[in-house]
Amino acid sequence: MATSADSTNVTAAKADATSLRELPPIFRRYRRDLSDAIDAGLRRGCDTLPPRASESVDVYGVLRYGMGRADAAGRPIEAATGKAMRPTLCLFACEATGGDPVVAMPAAVALEYVHNFSLIHDDIQDRDETRHHRPTIWKIWGVPRAIVAGNVLRTLADIALSDAATYGLSDDDVLELSDTLTGAYLEMIEGQFLDLSYESRGDISLDEYLGMIARKTGALIRCSLELGAYVGSRNPETVEAFRRCGRSLGLVFQVKDDVLGVWGDPDSTGKPVGADVRRKKNSFPVVHAMANASGADAETLEYVYGKEEPSDEDVIAVLDVMQRLGTRGTAEDLTERHAMQALDALAPVEMAPAAKHQVEELAHFLLVREH
Amino acid sequence: MATSADSTNVTAAKADATSLRELPPIFRRYRRDLSDAIDAGLRRGCDTLPPRASESVDVYGVLRYGMGRADAAGRPIEAATGKAMRPTLCLFACEATGGDPVVAMPAAVALEYVHNFSLIHDDIQDRDETRHHRPTIWKIWGVPRAIVAGNVLRTLADIALSDAATYGLSDDDVLELSDTLTGAYLEMIEGQFLDLSYESRGDISLDEYLGMIARKTGALIRCSLELGAYVGSRNPETVEAFRRCGRSLGLVFQVKDDVLGVWGDPDSTGKPVGADVRRKKNSFPVVHAMANASGADAETLEYVYGKEEPSDEDVIAVLDVMQRLGTRGTAEDLTERHAMQALDALAPVEMAPAAKHQVEELAHFLLVREH
Repeated sequence: MATSADSTNVTAAKADATSLRELPPIFRRYRRDLSDAIDAGLRRGCDTLPPRASESVDVYGVLRYGMGRADAAGRPIEAATGKAMRPTLCLFACEATGGDPVVAMPAAVALEYVHNFSLIHDDIQDRDETRHHRPTIWKIWGVPRAIVAGNVLRTLADIALSDAATYGLSDDDVLELSDTLTGAYLEMIEGQFLDLSYESRGDISLDEYLGMIARKTGALIRCSLELGAYVGSRNPETVEAFRRCGRSLGLVFQVKDDVLGVWGDPDSTGKPVGADVRRKKNSFPVVHAMANASGADAETLEYVYGKEEPSDEDVIAVLDVMQRLGTRGTAEDLTERHAMQALDALAPVEMAPAAKHQVEELAHFLLVREH
Repeated sequence: MATSADSTNVTAAKADATSLRELPPIFRRYRRDLSDAIDAGLRRGCDTLPPRASESVDVYGVLRYGMGRADAAGRPIEAATGKAMRPTLCLFACEATGGDPVVAMPAAVALEYVHNFSLIHDDIQDRDETRHHRPTIWKIWGVPRAIVAGNVLRTLADIALSDAATYGLSDDDVLELSDTLTGAYLEMIEGQFLDLSYESRGDISLDEYLGMIARKTGALIRCSLELGAYVGSRNPETVEAFRRCGRSLGLVFQVKDDVLGVWGDPDSTGKPVGADVRRKKNSFPVVHAMANASGADAETLEYVYGKEEPSDEDVIAVLDVMQRLGTRGTAEDLTERHAMQALDALAPVEMAPAAKHQVEELAHFLLVREH
């Protein structure tokens, strides 16, 4: 008989297998090289420690766990890593603009580390106990170590990026990449802070919300395309076009995420129906509903969001309000519009037809993905 | 009648006034410029936010509070900042090796930000509720925002350092400074992780302990002199000499800190007698005592350190054990030996007699300081 832990693992494995099959081909194209480069960066960190220290520190073991490379005891696993969307975007933009994606690999690795750093700290901030169906780092090793592990990963990102110099980029180029990445994650963490500040407020406007996610999620996605295009072309107009494309894709990604957090299929997302309503998460649907509800609907929202823990009935009542306000349709219109803008942004860039097609596949995938 | 809060402030102000008077003159030499540069870096971060966002984010307000520039409501204060030891060491090393300290200012500011970032996260990890006689950031704004505020400050350090390019340094030099700083704070946070790993162990050897503090505290102090000497001289032997000097001073600083945490005068340190024994902090005295105690003394230590919260009698019993083992004398011998080594390390470097004298004053200060 399957234990509860077994069935969780089976679900996780199933979801991941589906996920890989459904991803556009560019997600598979760089997967192996990227995976090797990510491992090499984590190993190198570990190698700098004196042997005795590395046994007891093992912050690198914690990070291998966090990045889906090992179980909590440090045993390597073939597992459950994420989509690696940011590094994939970076390598793709490099290749699409005529560069050798190998040269963009240090930037790609840095982006994946920064993204995972933000997940480690986010999980602490949100007290989330699982991610990708596994216990989060703070849940296993405690908050203090989880904070440090995140910081170490963030620093490995800088170290990875500084490798770019050994791939034939000039010091000037490396500084440019580094400044761009630093600026993007400053935006990202400012966005996190904004998000935390919004938690206690019920009067966030849609514009404020979109401004916050443009920072919290959008900045790093935008930066991924920007870094790749810079390495591939060194052409300011091309970089600017990818930057604008990335800004739109970032919005598509997060608003779609918000939609999945409320209306996603529990089998695909691994979350219950209305999950983000239940945990009273800041998200597009609730901001839209609060900004547009009146009368009894407004009272319902006020009542539910004033409660410590919304019940099943509360979640259904909120979903009903959103239904009446056309919240889901509004979100889907918005993501479609921005997916078009993302493609339009690249119109002036000369790219091979295959590359144009891949961007279209990607934008489409971000619109229709189920988890 | 003075309220309790008033008397805390008076004590704080008294301690800080004493502190400034007692510091060697080099701590006053750069104070004003450094303070301006630190403020400018914090302001600039704030200026990048759209006005509406900056009101509600105000992570920069949190940081100005943390760096002793403002009260919790954001009002500027003339206050209670630390010694600014790391940036002072950096500017001093630059000037002592023939450079213009202005050119090292971006590195100095970056060091102070990195140091303060580590304090913000340390306070969360140690659940410390006050620092410099003021409530800590997590205590006022909560753990999630404190984590992000630390991350923002850490990122401002990178941004500050990248300014070095506008001070006439080449891209190559800026990359070198940046790699050195990144390496040092990776060591620093690896040291934090080691420290957390040691907390649950009673069998740390003195060597392991010294290896841990060489990372946790030593790396950034060493890096401070290293960066300054690099800007001042661009001479690898000179940089190496300052590096070795910094390594020794880092040990002197931390072991002296540990001594003050156990035997410091409560009026000067603001902590009760035996403070670090009471909170069962990893520190040189306890590691020494545990490594050397036998018989009844070993049992006393085991008993006290096995308790959730040691009582006053427990603290006194531990101090008695340390007295019998000559722990304090051992610590003081060690710091004196390393202070000498710090000076010896600089012997091959050509420096003005005034500069040599200042290093001696500094080493002496680190040996005899009372807080």
